[in-house]
Amino acid sequence: MAVILINTFIVPEAQEAEFLRNWKATTEVFKKRPGFIETHLHRNTGVGNATFRFINYAKWESADAWRSNHDDYKPSEYNVPGVVGHPAIYEIIVDVIGDNPPSPVTGAALAA
Amino acid sequence: MAVILINTFIVPEAQEAEFLRNWKATTEVFKKRPGFIETHLHRNTGVGNATFRFINYAKWESADAWRSNHDDYKPSEYNVPGVVGHPAIYEIIVDVIGDNPPSPVTGAALAA
Repeated sequence: MAVILINTFIVPEAQEAEFLRNWKATTEVFKKRPGFIETHLHRNTGVGNATFRFINYAKWESADAWRSNHDDYKPSEYNVPGVVGHPAIYEIIVDVIGDNPPSPVTGAALAA
Repeated sequence: MAVILINTFIVPEAQEAEFLRNWKATTEVFKKRPGFIETHLHRNTGVGNATFRFINYAKWESADAWRSNHDDYKPSEYNVPGVVGHPAIYEIIVDVIGDNPPSPVTGAALAA
């Protein structure tokens, strides 16, 4: 069963380009490995808390696949000065959908 | 356009039940509000870094909708001793899909 890997990164502003270069190089390695499913890198927009500049939300086939690949290849972004990651496997325990889902504007809505 | 709200929570082990009770009560309030789209609460499985026990991954219709609702209602989980959140609006800047996607077992695969 696929697992969710979330990694919240502290990245000094001056190191953002270097972080991104290394993160992308690491991901090029992992994307070829069996067990890696997908990853989505999120950047803080500046609205709200500024602690974590980047958050990586990924899926692996198992915790073992994630761990064994990281035992085998150490992500180079951790060598960038000031970068601190907090990678862990998470499971979703609650899903809540709003009572007022956003409605696209449709012909019927326009005609109403 | 919908925005992504991610909140990483530090929660002392002894306060987990109290945190969850409050988080769910807060979400019951927000789910009724226009502008709230959905939320998914993630719990750390214990594999990897233990800093953040819970991570909330949500969607709101806009940063303004998120902010104005939080100006209007202060989530009670922040009153639980030791709880620290880091809420911010994020945008996805990189999507990477693995070269070896997991294949479900299909009839064709079984026949091969």
